[in-house]
Amino acid sequence: MLPSTHRPKHGGNLIWAASLAGCSPHAILDFSASINPLGPPQSALDAIQTAQADLKAYPDPNYGELRQALSQVHVSLDPDRILPGNGAAELLTWAGRELAQCSATVLVTPAFRDYQRALQSFGARVVECPLETLDRSRGEDTPHSLQARFEECLPPDLTASSVGLLLNNPHNPTGQMFSRQMILPLLDQFALVVIDEAFMEFLAPSEQQSLVDQVSRYENLVIIRSLTKFYSLPGLRLGYAIAHPDRLRRWQQWRDPWSVNSLAAAVGVAVLQDQAFEQQTWNWLKTARPQLFNGLQNLPGLHPRPSAANFLLVYSERSVLALQTALLQHHQILIRDCLSFPELGDRYFRVAVRTEAENQRLIEGLADVLQR
Amino acid sequence: MLPSTHRPKHGGNLIWAASLAGCSPHAILDFSASINPLGPPQSALDAIQTAQADLKAYPDPNYGELRQALSQVHVSLDPDRILPGNGAAELLTWAGRELAQCSATVLVTPAFRDYQRALQSFGARVVECPLETLDRSRGEDTPHSLQARFEECLPPDLTASSVGLLLNNPHNPTGQMFSRQMILPLLDQFALVVIDEAFMEFLAPSEQQSLVDQVSRYENLVIIRSLTKFYSLPGLRLGYAIAHPDRLRRWQQWRDPWSVNSLAAAVGVAVLQDQAFEQQTWNWLKTARPQLFNGLQNLPGLHPRPSAANFLLVYSERSVLALQTALLQHHQILIRDCLSFPELGDRYFRVAVRTEAENQRLIEGLADVLQR
Repeated sequence: MLPSTHRPKHGGNLIWAASLAGCSPHAILDFSASINPLGPPQSALDAIQTAQADLKAYPDPNYGELRQALSQVHVSLDPDRILPGNGAAELLTWAGRELAQCSATVLVTPAFRDYQRALQSFGARVVECPLETLDRSRGEDTPHSLQARFEECLPPDLTASSVGLLLNNPHNPTGQMFSRQMILPLLDQFALVVIDEAFMEFLAPSEQQSLVDQVSRYENLVIIRSLTKFYSLPGLRLGYAIAHPDRLRRWQQWRDPWSVNSLAAAVGVAVLQDQAFEQQTWNWLKTARPQLFNGLQNLPGLHPRPSAANFLLVYSERSVLALQTALLQHHQILIRDCLSFPELGDRYFRVAVRTEAENQRLIEGLADVLQR
Repeated sequence: MLPSTHRPKHGGNLIWAASLAGCSPHAILDFSASINPLGPPQSALDAIQTAQADLKAYPDPNYGELRQALSQVHVSLDPDRILPGNGAAELLTWAGRELAQCSATVLVTPAFRDYQRALQSFGARVVECPLETLDRSRGEDTPHSLQARFEECLPPDLTASSVGLLLNNPHNPTGQMFSRQMILPLLDQFALVVIDEAFMEFLAPSEQQSLVDQVSRYENLVIIRSLTKFYSLPGLRLGYAIAHPDRLRRWQQWRDPWSVNSLAAAVGVAVLQDQAFEQQTWNWLKTARPQLFNGLQNLPGLHPRPSAANFLLVYSERSVLALQTALLQHHQILIRDCLSFPELGDRYFRVAVRTEAENQRLIEGLADVLQR
C-alpha cells in the first residue's frame, strides 16, 4: 500500500495535498474533487442525526425504503430495477465483472481511472476509443455518427454485437455530453452498454440526456448514478445502479447483503425529497460555471474546454505540476492534475466549479502563480 | 428482490420481525443478531459527530490512520498487513474469490449463510465438513486431531495441499471455539486458510484463540475481523482483514478505493482506544452468558449448547417457528430461527447474550409461550 503522501490517482486526496501545502487538510480549498460546494444540505445532516439511533441494527438488506424513494424520483421506475451501492464506485466493480464477460469493452479515453481498475479486476479486454475520434462526429450530430466512430475503434477480430461499451455521460474529465439520440443506436449495436451518469443530476432536467427511461426497453443497458457528488457527501458512500432485475439479482449474490451503510440509506431517502436544494444547485451552476470558464479563459496560457458538467478541463501551455504545487504552497488551493489520464499528461488540469467567491479565489491564485 | 416482509436469511432483520409482531421495528427486543447490548460506546458516537464535518471529502483511500490504530491494537502488526473493509462481509467476498482459486474449499457446517454466498460468487467448489465430525475430536484435543478430521471429509480426488479452508472461530452458530494448537497444523496442511474471527473480541484476552500473530509467519493465512459486532454498530459497516501485503494489494485492485465510509473509519480509530468499554463488555459477558444459559436450560424442552461466544445455540424439542412467532406476537422478542442452516432446521434457535434484565425478559417470554 502506498503511504498517503504519494501522488494520488484520484481527486480529493486532501491528506496528500495538505502535506505539500504544509497545512491541515481542512484548510485546503479543494477544486480537485467534483463535489457540489453548496452541500451537504441540512436535510442530509438531519437524516444522519435521526438515523444514528438505528446503527445498532443491521441495514435492511432489501433497502426497501431507499429503492422506493429512487423509484419515485425516476417516475415510477420499478424498484426491482434499482440496486443501491456503496458509492457508484462499488457498482462499477460489478459492472466491470459483467463487461469482462464480453469479448472486449470499448472505453472512451481519457477515462476515469477507476474504470480501468474495475475492468482489469475481472480480466476484461479493453479497446480504447480516444475522445478526439469521437469529436470528429461533432458538427455531424446524426443519430448514427457516434456508432460509426466506435466501429472504427474496434480491431478486425471483434464485432460490436459481442462487445461491451462503458460510457461516461457527461464525460469525465472533459465535461462533454453525449445526446440521447446519439447513444440510443448504440444499444442495438453493443452486447452490453454501461453508462455512468455520476454527474447527470447537476444538469437541470431540461438539459439532462439520461437513458434511465430506456432500462425497461433494453435488457443490455446498465445505468450507474452517484448521490454523493450532488449532495456533497462522498465520505458517506452512496450510489445506485439501474438495470434489468435479473442482472441486479446476480450482483446481489456477488456482493454481501449489507453493502450500503444505514446512514447513507437514510440520507438517500431524505435528500431525494429535498427539491429546494436541487433547484438551488441548478441555479448556482447556471451562473458559476460561465463565471469560472471566463475567468480561466482570460488568464494567459490557459484554455478551458466547454463543459456540460460541474467541472472544467483546462489546457495549460505551462507544466501543470508546477502550477499545482505553487497553488498549494502559496494559496492552499488544490487542482486536479491529469497525470492519471495518460492521454492528457502534464498539460491539462481539471477544476470543479465551486461558489463564485471560491472560483474567484482560484482565478486570482492562478493569476498570481502564472506571474511567478 | 424479495420484499422485506419475507423470512430473512440472516439475523437482525427488524422490518420483517416488526411486520409479524405488529409493532414498530424499534419496539422489537432483538436476540437474533449477535450484537453487544452495551454499545455503541460514547466514544463512537462522539467520533461520528466530529467526523461529520469531513463527509464533504472522499475517505483517505489508504485509511492510514485506521490502519495505524489497528496496528497498535495487534501489537505492532505491520499496517501493510491490514486492510479495512465495508464490514467483515465485504472482505468475505474477496476471501471467497481467493478460495475459489483453490481446487476446493472445506467449510465447517452448519455455516454462516454468507460463506456459501461468497464462495458461490466466484464458483468455488465447496466440501462440507459437519461439526459433528469435528466434535468427535473433542476429548482427544491433540494438535493433529482436527487435521485428521478434515482429511476424512475430503473426497478422494482432492489433497489438502491444493484445498482451501474457511473456518469460523469462535464458530457461528454454535459458539464452539477451536484452540490455537488445533488450528496451527492446518496452516501446513491447507493451501489457504481463512479464519473468520468476527466474534473473537468478545473473549477476554486470556481466553482468545486468535491466529493474528501467525500472519507474518504464514503467507497462506487470512484473518477476518469485525468491529461492528463488539461496538454495536452493524449499521455503520466496519471490518478488517489481516493477511500478506501482496494478497491485500490484490484485493484493493479488485474493489474500489473508498470501500470504508469516513464515519466508520473515524469510529474505528476512536473505539480501538476505548479500553473502558472493552473491559465493561468482558465483565458483562462473564456473568450474563451463564445467567442466560442456566435460565434456558431450566425451561422444559430447551437445551442450550455450551458456547465461548456472545450467543447460544439452543436445541428445542418443539417447533422453533411456532416459538418464534409466539415470542414476536406476545412479547415483541425476536430469536434467530436456524432454517437458513440446512443441517439444523426447525429444532434449533440462536440467541444473542444481552443484558441480564433483557435475558430475563427472554427467559420469561419463552416460559410463557412454552406453556401455551
